[in-house]
Amino acid sequence: MHILGCGAALPTPHHFCSSQVLNIREKLFMIDCAEGSQIQLRRGHLKYPHLNNIFITHLHGDHCFGLMGLISTFALLGRTAPLHIYAPTGLRDIFQPQIDFFCQGMEYTVQLHEVNHKEPTVIYDDRSVSVETIPLKHRIPCVGYLFKEKQLPRHIRRDVIDAYHIPISQINNIKAGMDWQMPDGEVIPNHLLTTPPDPVRSYAYCSDTMFVPQNAPQLSGVSLLYHEATFLQEQELLARKTFHSTAQQAATLAQLSHAGKLLLGHFSSRYKDKEPQLLAEAQSVFPDTIAAQDGMHIIL
Amino acid sequence: MHILGCGAALPTPHHFCSSQVLNIREKLFMIDCAEGSQIQLRRGHLKYPHLNNIFITHLHGDHCFGLMGLISTFALLGRTAPLHIYAPTGLRDIFQPQIDFFCQGMEYTVQLHEVNHKEPTVIYDDRSVSVETIPLKHRIPCVGYLFKEKQLPRHIRRDVIDAYHIPISQINNIKAGMDWQMPDGEVIPNHLLTTPPDPVRSYAYCSDTMFVPQNAPQLSGVSLLYHEATFLQEQELLARKTFHSTAQQAATLAQLSHAGKLLLGHFSSRYKDKEPQLLAEAQSVFPDTIAAQDGMHIIL
Repeated sequence: MHILGCGAALPTPHHFCSSQVLNIREKLFMIDCAEGSQIQLRRGHLKYPHLNNIFITHLHGDHCFGLMGLISTFALLGRTAPLHIYAPTGLRDIFQPQIDFFCQGMEYTVQLHEVNHKEPTVIYDDRSVSVETIPLKHRIPCVGYLFKEKQLPRHIRRDVIDAYHIPISQINNIKAGMDWQMPDGEVIPNHLLTTPPDPVRSYAYCSDTMFVPQNAPQLSGVSLLYHEATFLQEQELLARKTFHSTAQQAATLAQLSHAGKLLLGHFSSRYKDKEPQLLAEAQSVFPDTIAAQDGMHIIL
Repeated sequence: MHILGCGAALPTPHHFCSSQVLNIREKLFMIDCAEGSQIQLRRGHLKYPHLNNIFITHLHGDHCFGLMGLISTFALLGRTAPLHIYAPTGLRDIFQPQIDFFCQGMEYTVQLHEVNHKEPTVIYDDRSVSVETIPLKHRIPCVGYLFKEKQLPRHIRRDVIDAYHIPISQINNIKAGMDWQMPDGEVIPNHLLTTPPDPVRSYAYCSDTMFVPQNAPQLSGVSLLYHEATFLQEQELLARKTFHSTAQQAATLAQLSHAGKLLLGHFSSRYKDKEPQLLAEAQSVFPDTIAAQDGMHIIL
């Protein structure tokens, strides 16, 4: 997971606004696309052609003003593969006219998908991962995104495989969980041939939103939770008024969700020296918390 | 004159795309506004509230994708002064819907002015400067901008003023060129009381455009000419085909215009190591040439 920007509202010398890229088995998935995301993508040496899906949480400028630059750059680079962009209602009305105006004659299509922001919905699915929306509460329709890795294959026990002389052609079946029948009819159960697969990983992105504890069941056991922490708890009323969260609320959601780790972001420019304070506030509730930084990458 | 970006088409680690800011007696005038211009403005410590006028040459993304971020940031910072944006036809159709969508409830107005791109037209005038369009030839309607400083006041010769006991209340009139009548009726001509004013300065921005030598008379004697140099002369056919210029053509226009100095920009990412070659090519025709760099500032 690569953080291209984790600032709120205004870009500052410390932070670009919201944008991240998940690399899942060399496919890149972008979440939010603030102004300058294409520049950060290039700085991070992330490969443009591997990016086919962009998930926008909501149509505030600090989460989507980088879209047109990226779409346009892809066109100039001669992209031919379709690009899919997901966002709540309004996406098509505001971006289709811009694409028509600025990208005449481009050789690929941009497919705009408006997503349901009211209930969790699977909007993307391939053999490696599924992506579902997380209903968030913000001033305008807004969704988070939950990336769930598909079940991984079991690990072969090479010594046992060799002992039973199981041919290489059968390895994928064994990894997938099949038992092995010997020439004499004896069945060797799969659990003797393999060890359990690595646990599947998941990633949830929740920004921008007020505190929504009702989302905890959907997020249950998530490996890494990115949650906005626009304010300190002392500003809770302001957080509620602006439909944002405090660091303490982010940590409480991580706790309720039994998240593996919490990553704080969406840092307000008004708190430029207070990120350690936001982090400490969250850690007092949920110790396994870290603070996002532009350019950071995390291997799950 | 501050260069926020001087790259062509695609932002790269070396260059943001086109944007500049002129500071004329503490008023800021922006020319073009590529993605990330607000970030560069902040990095350059330029004062947002002093920026009231933005001049866009044409509606290609690498010259205007930073507008919405800037407009939106001004709104978040509580701006109340109107912001004027000038550009060729199409500006209103493409930006007004975005402003209406992304900047609901903002406390200032954005006034969009569509300018004549077919003949030179004065579009801005205050007591310090006038701005006129320069008709350029590009794939879509495109104008350059010529900034002409107003005539400066003459310099007072303090020794002569004192000798004639001219009161302080009259100094501005004398600076403006008035003669002085002595109590006995004798007239002291202004040229004895003052020395000539500093020469007025002018700045012309010509990008994007093919070579248009017909513009030389309008640019005659310009103090500093910024001209695109997207290609080397060896690519002249490609330059013509894409409605861009070569470094040699930029220099030829500087020569025909008797410009004080030439500044090359709009560097293509395909030439990332060839900027010295572009510069050398131009200097062989017009020696007083320099190459733009992001973050450079020039005092005229």
